[in-house]
Formats: sequence, structure tokens, C-alpha cells
Amino acid sequence: MTSSQDQKKAGAGPFVLSIDAMGGDRGPATVVAGIADSAALNPDIRFILHGPAAELERLVAKRKGLSEVCEIRDAADVVSMDDKPSQVMRNGKKTSMWSTLDSVRNGEATVAVSCGNTGALMALSMIRLRKLPGVNRPAIAILWPSRNPQGFNVMLDVGADIRADARDLLQFALMGASYARNGLALDRPRVGLLNVGTEEHKGRSELKEAHELISQAADGAQFEFVGFVEGGDIPGKKADVIVTDGFTGNVALKTGEGTASLIGDLLKEAFAYSPLSRLASLLALTSLRRLQKRIDPRRVNGGVFLGLNGTVVKSHGSADATGVSAAVKLAFKLAQIGFTDKLAARVASTAALDHDADGFGAKDGTTQ
Amino acid sequence: MTSSQDQKKAGAGPFVLSIDAMGGDRGPATVVAGIADSAALNPDIRFILHGPAAELERLVAKRKGLSEVCEIRDAADVVSMDDKPSQVMRNGKKTSMWSTLDSVRNGEATVAVSCGNTGALMALSMIRLRKLPGVNRPAIAILWPSRNPQGFNVMLDVGADIRADARDLLQFALMGASYARNGLALDRPRVGLLNVGTEEHKGRSELKEAHELISQAADGAQFEFVGFVEGGDIPGKKADVIVTDGFTGNVALKTGEGTASLIGDLLKEAFAYSPLSRLASLLALTSLRRLQKRIDPRRVNGGVFLGLNGTVVKSHGSADATGVSAAVKLAFKLAQIGFTDKLAARVASTAALDHDADGFGAKDGTTQ
Repeated sequence: MTSSQDQKKAGAGPFVLSIDAMGGDRGPATVVAGIADSAALNPDIRFILHGPAAELERLVAKRKGLSEVCEIRDAADVVSMDDKPSQVMRNGKKTSMWSTLDSVRNGEATVAVSCGNTGALMALSMIRLRKLPGVNRPAIAILWPSRNPQGFNVMLDVGADIRADARDLLQFALMGASYARNGLALDRPRVGLLNVGTEEHKGRSELKEAHELISQAADGAQFEFVGFVEGGDIPGKKADVIVTDGFTGNVALKTGEGTASLIGDLLKEAFAYSPLSRLASLLALTSLRRLQKRIDPRRVNGGVFLGLNGTVVKSHGSADATGVSAAVKLAFKLAQIGFTDKLAARVASTAALDHDADGFGAKDGTTQ
Repeated sequence: MTSSQDQKKAGAGPFVLSIDAMGGDRGPATVVAGIADSAALNPDIRFILHGPAAELERLVAKRKGLSEVCEIRDAADVVSMDDKPSQVMRNGKKTSMWSTLDSVRNGEATVAVSCGNTGALMALSMIRLRKLPGVNRPAIAILWPSRNPQGFNVMLDVGADIRADARDLLQFALMGASYARNGLALDRPRVGLLNVGTEEHKGRSELKEAHELISQAADGAQFEFVGFVEGGDIPGKKADVIVTDGFTGNVALKTGEGTASLIGDLLKEAFAYSPLSRLASLLALTSLRRLQKRIDPRRVNGGVFLGLNGTVVKSHGSADATGVSAAVKLAFKLAQIGFTDKLAARVASTAALDHDADGFGAKDGTTQ
């Protein structure tokens, strides 16, 4: 961890991000456009960009000022959306994804960004970055538009693993709270455990056990445990962090996305119905854009892999330049606050419960 | 089953519904208003209404023509939203819910409607109506607004039980297909099994086993099996019936409802933002109402309990008169087509796989 010490201190930029140029549905031109947007807005970002060198050099040269802040690493192979994780783990050494993770592994960057195949990215991240001490299952955390003042809730796991026992759910609570504290600037995040009812006697046995473990850890790890929450609370204001297993979380995420998309299309249909409704939609355009901006998935583009020696931001495969830029913004923020080290300290402090959890916060004057 | 034979033939009304007047958030006046609306629209409906007789007589007398089609059964006690299912099973004999189910049990009605406590209603239904032969776990099925031509997809189980093994999931597929065939008039419903990916190697082991069982049963039970589907397909057009366990289904349902409600509120906010946007909203009112009508949960109010000797429609606890009337409309439709017997035949035909499934359809000239 010492190799990233210099980058760790808040505000002591520039900060280096490792970017996978390949594997997204729209190809490397879109990724380069996205990082160019980010570079133009933020002088403290540096990139290591991974992919076929000749093609990337050409794309980067076209963007004014980008070549000065962007180093290119040649990687000939690409992980496709159809590649099985096991294949990539065996034969993926020359892929841009592998190379991207290795820049984090060797300490050149603390955060990686990829639009590629989620399963392969998680499998490679596990073997190249390895799990943090004390973490059994890493998790993917996402931001979900919500009624809370911060505008978003954290939910995890949304699909790193389909299983989670009580101890895993406790770790998700710790990691999710740390992410909310650092990513959403919430001093004392409220954590809820997803269930089919809020009564303590309800649900599967591992949930009852997790309820108890998380209850006990809450004070030491500086979060508030609000107990069981239901699906309706994911976009609600009862909790800031929603903890669940990767199967349930993945279904909930995709159900929410599908529902939002259906409503959006029905809204368009409703406004296209008659000449009067089309006129109304013109007048309502600003209002509708305001709504769209609020729930636009591109604005919060990026699942974050938690529980590894290094942080990986998974951008949507279909992300456009705006989406890539949003993922880069999130990655930069996490690099700037030294999130990887803070998360590691938080998990370690709870794994060894004799340690006073507050001690870590005191050591560098911040909280994890 | 012989006692309901006379009611079974399609079109041979009137049809008697057993209605629980109590247990909803808005009290019996709302239920009576709802059934009065239904009675005014449909001369073939008859009601047995359960609750405190004096109060119900007063409420029914106020609605013109209702007393002629509505018989009142006195039941002094009410199941509240906080009552535990186990308490109601032990001490609930005098409740309106118990009395409502007993009218189905003794063959006076084939379908029951209640706005009461879901857990208690399912528990009482299990002991009073008993499970259909061949059914291990009954399920709650709901209609979900979708991109399909019929406007809705069926999803089950949304919370009858938090567990489901492969054999239960097969039964959900059979029952869901039968419900879609009869309730949504789809000759050959497409059934999907909810998972975190569409590849056959993905997911929990019981899902892989269920995949195989449902595959094998599809032809005989006259549905098409589209394999694994994801959360985004619940409101999608890939399948008409989505099969899952009650834990996942309940989380998905509440996540979808919560997301739709958040978007609705944000839409209102967006239109209330400025004088111009308020003007736009006036012009857009018709379009917005059209959208609201399309996704209004009151229009498809009613989870249906499947797998019992009798059909139970569970209306939302917070249903207003429009919602109650929608639940009654659904109950009437199911009574009219003799759904309970069709479902029983379908489950039995697959439980005894030697029987030719088509035989049942041929017997009364319809399909199950």
C-alpha cells in the first residue's frame, strides 16, 4: 500500500486513473471522447490508457491537450461481452482489461475504469488485485436515484456474486457505509438490510443473523443501522445504504432500470398522441429535461467494485462520452480522497474488533 | 368441486363473489362504494359481504340497488394490519376474513376478495381452502405494466413464501401460464424464469434445475418457455409470465412500485418549478393523465393467490373505491371463466404426467 501513499492525501494531485479503452459497445473513440471531456474540466487528472497503441494514439492526438495528460499502454487483445470469465482469466494476459488492472496492481494508479464485460472484469480484478484482508466476497455498489437530500442511495451487492452469508452481508454494510461516507459525504450513513418486511422475525435465517451482526458493528464503524428495509426503500429516504446479496440486488437494479425506461417511453408516447399534446411537450421540454437529468443513468454511471486492493469503476457497456466522463469523475473523486486505503482500514478495523475503530480515523485526521 | 359446477360454465351468470368488507386502510365504506360501482356496471355480479352486520346494512342501504345483489354475513372481529398470521389462525374464527374465505370453502362463491393483511390472508387461505392436489407452495401472482400488447405481464410469486425449490418454480410456471391464458386471454403464454443473466450456466443450482423441469413441461402445458430472463424483462416484452421465488418477487415488486412513485413525484416537481413549467403542465394535463391511467396501480389492483381450492384476490390495503372495484372486476372475470377449476385441472394434469394434458382442455371445450 505504500506505493500509493503519495496519492492518498486529499488535494495532493495530480491523480492517475487507469482506463480500459476497449470492451465498451461504442468502441475506443467514445472512451477517448469521455476522458477528453474530463481532462478539459479537471487539470488534476492523469490517465494511463490501455488498448491497441496505434489506434489510441490517433484518437488521443485528435483531442487538444489530451496527449499531455495521457500515457498509452499497448494491449492488443480485447475482452468481448460474450467472453466467459474463466476464458479471460486463463487467456487474457494481453487484453486491455488485464493491463488496466495491472496499473493499479503495481501502484501506478489507485483506481481503474472499464466499460467492459462485468463478469470478466470482476473475475480478473479478484486474481490481479486480490481481496482485501478480512473480505470474503467483494461486492459491486451502485448509486440509485433517491428521495434523500444527497439525491442518491448506495446499493450493494448488485451482482459480484449470487450468494452472500450473514458475515458477507456485514462486510457489505461496512464497505457500503464507507463508500457513502466518502462518495456521498455522509458523516454517519444509515444502513438498511433488504428484506420482504420490516419486522425482525421475517425473512431468511441468514438475514436474521446478519441483522444481529450489523447491529453490533454499527457504532464502532460509525454508521446507523435502521434494520430491515423493503424494495420500496431503495429509492426512498429511510436509508442511505441498502445491503443485499448479489442475486437480489441485481434483480432489483434491473427491475428499477426497466421500470424507469418503460415510464420514460410511455411518457414520450403520451406526449406524441395528438397535436395538442405535441404542443404541450414543446412547452414542457425544460421541465422534462430537468426530470431526465435527475434520473439520467449516465450521470451516475459506474458500479464500484469494493473489497479489493484497489478500486475498480465499472462503467455501463453502452456508455456514451457523457457516461464515460461521469465514470471518470467518480473514479477521480475516489482516487483524490484515497478511498482504497480508507476502505481497507475500515474493513481491517472491524475484522480485528479489539482495535478501536476510531483510532484509524484519528490517525490521518479523517474517517473511513 | 361439484358444488361450484353450476357457476363454472362461462357466461352462465350470475356469479357470486365473497367480499371482506373489513381490514382495508379506508374501512368498510370504501369497500361498499367499490362493490356498488361494480354492481352498477355489471348485472351479473352478486356479493356476499362479510363484517359487522349493522354497520354494513347501513352502508349498503345508502347505495341504490346494492341491497338486492348483496347478502350480508355478520362477523364481529377484524384482522388488523399488525396482527400476526399465527394469531389470526388461532383466534380468528369470528373475523370477517375467516368468514369471507368460508363462503368459498363451502361453495357459495368461487372467488374471494379482501383488502386485509396479506400474511394473515395467505395463512388463513391455506388452512380454510387448503392447497390444490399437487401444489406444494401456493403463490401470489400480480399484473405488471409491460411493453407487451396485452399491456401487462404476470409475475409470481411476489410474497406467499420466501422460499421456492425447483419443483415449486415449475408449479409457479404452470399456474402463471394458466392465469395468463385465462386472465389475459393469451393462447400460448411465454414463460420466463427470473435470473441474473440469460445464459444457461448462470445462477443458483435450483434455477438450473427449474430451467430443465419447466422446459420439459412447456409443450404439454401449452406455454412457451423462453428460458432465463432478467429484472429488466419484468416490464418488458420477452415474456408474458415471470416466475421467481417469493423473496425475489416481493423485492422486485416493491422496487418497481418505489421507482415509479419516485419518478411520478419528480415529474410533479419538474412541472411545479417555474410559471412557464406550470403553464406547460396545464397543457400537458391530458397527456399526463393518459400516462397515469396506463400505469395507475389501482387499475390492476389485485394480487391473486394461486394453488388453493378457490381463488383469492388480495386488493391493496390502501385501495380506494376505484381500486376495490378493479379487484372486484378481476375476481368476477376469474369466477366467470371458472378459473379455479381450470387451474386445478392444469396442475393435476402435469402432476400426473401420463395423462394427456390436452385431454382436460378437450373435455369442456376450453383450455386451462
